[in-house]
Amino acid sequence: MIYTITLNPTIDRLLFLEGTLTKGKNNRLRKVAYDIGGKGHHGSYAMNQLGVKNRALGFSGTTNASKLEKILSEKGIHYDFVEVFGKPTRESYVILEENVGGSILITEKGFKITDYDTELLYEKIENKVQEEDMVLIAGSLPPGFELRELEDLLKQLKKIGCFIACDLSGEALKKAVEVGVDFIKPNRFEVQELFSSDDNFLDHIRELSKKIDYVIVSLGKDGSICAHADELQQVSTPNVKLVNDTGAGDCFVGTFLASLSLSKPLTECLSLASACAANHVQYNDSTTFNIKDARKLQKEVTVEKLG
Amino acid sequence: MIYTITLNPTIDRLLFLEGTLTKGKNNRLRKVAYDIGGKGHHGSYAMNQLGVKNRALGFSGTTNASKLEKILSEKGIHYDFVEVFGKPTRESYVILEENVGGSILITEKGFKITDYDTELLYEKIENKVQEEDMVLIAGSLPPGFELRELEDLLKQLKKIGCFIACDLSGEALKKAVEVGVDFIKPNRFEVQELFSSDDNFLDHIRELSKKIDYVIVSLGKDGSICAHADELQQVSTPNVKLVNDTGAGDCFVGTFLASLSLSKPLTECLSLASACAANHVQYNDSTTFNIKDARKLQKEVTVEKLG
Repeated sequence: MIYTITLNPTIDRLLFLEGTLTKGKNNRLRKVAYDIGGKGHHGSYAMNQLGVKNRALGFSGTTNASKLEKILSEKGIHYDFVEVFGKPTRESYVILEENVGGSILITEKGFKITDYDTELLYEKIENKVQEEDMVLIAGSLPPGFELRELEDLLKQLKKIGCFIACDLSGEALKKAVEVGVDFIKPNRFEVQELFSSDDNFLDHIRELSKKIDYVIVSLGKDGSICAHADELQQVSTPNVKLVNDTGAGDCFVGTFLASLSLSKPLTECLSLASACAANHVQYNDSTTFNIKDARKLQKEVTVEKLG
Repeated sequence: MIYTITLNPTIDRLLFLEGTLTKGKNNRLRKVAYDIGGKGHHGSYAMNQLGVKNRALGFSGTTNASKLEKILSEKGIHYDFVEVFGKPTRESYVILEENVGGSILITEKGFKITDYDTELLYEKIENKVQEEDMVLIAGSLPPGFELRELEDLLKQLKKIGCFIACDLSGEALKKAVEVGVDFIKPNRFEVQELFSSDDNFLDHIRELSKKIDYVIVSLGKDGSICAHADELQQVSTPNVKLVNDTGAGDCFVGTFLASLSLSKPLTECLSLASACAANHVQYNDSTTFNIKDARKLQKEVTVEKLG
């Protein structure tokens, strides 16, 4: 079983503008739609598309619970959250301009997690996660769930002995590297942040890879680099028309881990993940991709050994 | 009594950014706050600050009724809406950048009004509004309440014989001018739109003023021009630091009509309204102004006869 943990979930509110966003005028909306937010939920959705069973864990607020649950159910995501009473799950605003690629993302901080809530999460994990499972921790840390709590969570998972994947950034990513996990997916900038020296970028990746089984560094439209088993691989990304790039990384991580859990060869895991992410950015929401179309795109993806 | 009619009410969701809005990054929010939206509601708030009794009429959705009612109650606004079952009152997003004046406004369309809802509004007005009352119709028309319905509403009010003020734009403003009302507040651009000829701007105002008792044309930081009783007056605006200009016009209209209802001299009505609006733009929300501070600013406002 794969578990995704979204510590700071969000409901994406997609704002479809008439025209482009302009200061000083009334920017009218064509429509408003809702989508799952939270990197772990996106990961779960992506795994579902590959038919890989998974469950979304984490925190959720009760005051707008029905809204979140409706969206998760529509996407076919199975969940088992620690419910935080009297708080709303935060919202993220994804502004989509008419006939303009990409999106403008605005995110709320999220509600404060108490020690009691954290204990309930640890308990849930203790009762559920087994040694043979895979766990993905993705997204930002909510207020009240700080680096100390993340460290405790990571140590709890290491003790269980499951495969630990982390899609984190900043200090949280540093902590994951320090504790030692099985998978990270930083971008180029986040890799630099992990090192004080100005050494060669590829050397940094090699260094990380000594401690972490799978290091995948995303390079945007330049694809990604994967370090595993003393080898670096350069993964290309197919050339597609960008509509909305929100969730592209989550799509990559979800499909990569799903393929890995199915014991597919690494090059297959990488090329499919790259193709799924590229297919996803052609849709205007934060999650959708079509696995059949992605499999066609996969043929365009090259995975080449580096150095 | 003054009645304000907001046909397409909205809840303002104020999004306070860390830094400035940038595409391609995660724009984090410092905080989220709610404020009344809808030009009529803003007018009601402004009238309250001058101690002038008024009531907000119009439509409201039931699915998020508690949210709207909470905000109106906090602002001390008395209301009596036609409730539209199973629909949400729309939201407007006011994005406020850190240390940057002004705001970025994004608005939803609003739910569809049926003939039945419209009939209920006409009925409410029939039962409430008296000849000696003042009515302000402000803001956009919602889907389903089109120019024909607006015309019927204006004719109903004319039949009652009350003072009719309209803060409308586009075709709705044209309709108000055509039917003939007692007050309009177009901006320079909206005045030009009302005429097919390229005549002198001031001549256009004089032309409007033949049919409409009070014509106030807002010119932004250049103040405004008021036409009344065959005279044009130029009203200045005090020089203040702009924080958020959302709702400045509504503040002007609300305080002007409130003063007028108290039978204050026209120059006093104009200078106080200009001062209140200038005081308002120094606050970061869509409504707040301080009447005491505004009275100080009022001394800086000049009202001079034109031509």
